[in-house]
Amino acid sequence: MQFRQKTLANGLVVIGELNPEAKSAAVGFFVRAGARDETLQINGVSHYLEHMLFKGTERLNAFEVNEAFDSRGAQFNAFTSEEQTVFYAAVLPEYLIDVTQLWAELMRPALRDEDFNIEKNVIKEEIAMYQDSPAFDVVDRCRGLHFGTHPCGHSVLGTVETIDGLTAGRMRQYFSNHYAPNNMVVACAGNFDWDRLVATVETASGRWPAQPVERALSDFPGTKQKAQADKPNLKREHICLIHTGVSAQDPRRFAAAMLSLIIGDDYGSRFFWELVDKALVEEASMHFGPMDGTGIFYNYFCCSTENAGRVMGIVNGIFHDLADNGVTEEELVKAKNKVLSALVIKNEVPMGRLVDLGFHWMYLGEYRSIEQDVEAVKAVEAGQINTLIRQIDLNSYTQYVLSPPTTS
Amino acid sequence: MQFRQKTLANGLVVIGELNPEAKSAAVGFFVRAGARDETLQINGVSHYLEHMLFKGTERLNAFEVNEAFDSRGAQFNAFTSEEQTVFYAAVLPEYLIDVTQLWAELMRPALRDEDFNIEKNVIKEEIAMYQDSPAFDVVDRCRGLHFGTHPCGHSVLGTVETIDGLTAGRMRQYFSNHYAPNNMVVACAGNFDWDRLVATVETASGRWPAQPVERALSDFPGTKQKAQADKPNLKREHICLIHTGVSAQDPRRFAAAMLSLIIGDDYGSRFFWELVDKALVEEASMHFGPMDGTGIFYNYFCCSTENAGRVMGIVNGIFHDLADNGVTEEELVKAKNKVLSALVIKNEVPMGRLVDLGFHWMYLGEYRSIEQDVEAVKAVEAGQINTLIRQIDLNSYTQYVLSPPTTS
Repeated sequence: MQFRQKTLANGLVVIGELNPEAKSAAVGFFVRAGARDETLQINGVSHYLEHMLFKGTERLNAFEVNEAFDSRGAQFNAFTSEEQTVFYAAVLPEYLIDVTQLWAELMRPALRDEDFNIEKNVIKEEIAMYQDSPAFDVVDRCRGLHFGTHPCGHSVLGTVETIDGLTAGRMRQYFSNHYAPNNMVVACAGNFDWDRLVATVETASGRWPAQPVERALSDFPGTKQKAQADKPNLKREHICLIHTGVSAQDPRRFAAAMLSLIIGDDYGSRFFWELVDKALVEEASMHFGPMDGTGIFYNYFCCSTENAGRVMGIVNGIFHDLADNGVTEEELVKAKNKVLSALVIKNEVPMGRLVDLGFHWMYLGEYRSIEQDVEAVKAVEAGQINTLIRQIDLNSYTQYVLSPPTTS
Repeated sequence: MQFRQKTLANGLVVIGELNPEAKSAAVGFFVRAGARDETLQINGVSHYLEHMLFKGTERLNAFEVNEAFDSRGAQFNAFTSEEQTVFYAAVLPEYLIDVTQLWAELMRPALRDEDFNIEKNVIKEEIAMYQDSPAFDVVDRCRGLHFGTHPCGHSVLGTVETIDGLTAGRMRQYFSNHYAPNNMVVACAGNFDWDRLVATVETASGRWPAQPVERALSDFPGTKQKAQADKPNLKREHICLIHTGVSAQDPRRFAAAMLSLIIGDDYGSRFFWELVDKALVEEASMHFGPMDGTGIFYNYFCCSTENAGRVMGIVNGIFHDLADNGVTEEELVKAKNKVLSALVIKNEVPMGRLVDLGFHWMYLGEYRSIEQDVEAVKAVEAGQINTLIRQIDLNSYTQYVLSPPTTS
């Protein structure tokens, strides 16, 4: 694997990790624009804008965009998070340049009023659909509660109200501010020609003007509030707990990832043995969510109303035990092996590698080889995880519960 | 890539595709035991048995099984379908032998009464959870309706009634009949030592006795019936249509896969442009489901009650147009590129390759290289797809609709 990097005059960063053995190549445009970069008034604009990029440019309509990807057999998609909008494609090596050129072209969308108005309904349908999923809804609500007025609490989808209130003009303004070349990274992984890649990006994007753009970064301890709501049609309690985490830049992020596996991995974790295996819950998990300058751990449980009290008792018992006694050496070894094999297996294919490559540059402004991450994981000691447990205070969290309507 | 194969004296087939460049290896035990191999009385036993294998052996309890995988950082799981139960793991190369040995050991489970009784509730919870998903439920019901008395209509999960009625003794009997070495394939892909793999399987499994076991194969045209049911709490119409397809052994399977992409791929298909892009449905898809000696296409739509009539009109219009005019050359080229890039990208990583490797042997009793499949895809002509459209009769299908309760 060979790493290459070039920053164009307008600030657009192009990075590539070349693997001539790979059978495919993947390219991604990583834009530093997510829900946290929005004001509450235009909440949801980043995600809505992601949709709009597929509606085409002055030259291409939506149908032609799709045809252009499809005719290359591209596996392509995009996602928007609290912090990024990412557009990506995996293709056979011979189509990499075509597809990079296409993405670059789409990064200057037409944003037609007509498309904007039609897409508004699609976005509102998506909001309705996700709100119908209690697992999604409770985490979204809990994150909002946890972050209070900090912008990391913004919902990625926005609300029906903010989407209704959004105008095409306001979206164009957001676009100009955030889709600046100096606020983007083009990353490429797998089997491709670096010089042709750079030349392609340079030709397509070299004349986009740089813009002043900045993200306000601040860490946030979390409100640690508790809330509960009834929701019609629910049959189960859906419980989300959020702990303070560490940031994507924090050296403790490797220990944090292991801690979340030890507590709440799908298999073999403390939640698994004490809750899932005992059939007290349908689901119990803990995930580490590192972010730009801040971070959280989110826990999710789904169980019957009857079991909810007992489940929370066991969960708090697990947290207390870890705060008092720390993790065991056996747990550390298991977590390490899990992280290592996941890391190697995910990165084995260019599309998997692409995401780490782009995120490392977005968050750290640096390249990290798989080997560097492997070493960092191997170096974590139980003592570091136990120190982290004390620092984040595992016994203290924000809590949101969605319950079936009380029948009385 | 090098292919190796060995059949042990008891009929157990071991196959391997070696890729010394890979960073990982994957192993799978493919058992020819699924819902279609069950009688209606014990429907769900294959899936229940899959769960029971994780409960351990005479030597290992469930906790130790999990620890044994976890300590190797194995990404492991299992799934049961209408036709197979597959147990698999992806690991770093140094753990491949350990994990193969572990799976082989688990293929002779203890099937303890106590574990059986506890797991019964887990299975029933899973049935309840899936029945709560209208998209899953409607397809399951429609498949049952389509196949009528043919065993391919059996639900993989079974019903609360069949699971309640199942005894550990009956499961043990099913196990003895179906987990015979001559009814299994051990497949391995990626970076591993073939001789050590064979020696490991031989030592662990070479003395399992062969059993007479046979699957009744018969093609089935489908009942082409129509049914509808109301379901409380639904807000949308969930519609499943099932067409007659072709089998996993049929040379027309490549054309069939392309036809389903042309009609109902997530992006760029006829359903996409005429239904999803027009915001008439939240979801519209068509998938090809090749099976042992038979096959189906299943279509799924989710839309508002208000739109349902119009949606079905458009869907039937698409079917009629294809029956009359066939697919276009442009559609063929796009579908081909989609299938090709999906094929190459999926197979790039050992875990992805494993599934094709195992299924080819299960269905065809032969090895097929990626290149062979690539050639077969490239060779498909529009005329072959159009012939297939006439043969399967696109205008005729089984239909099941789940609707919100009528308010009157």
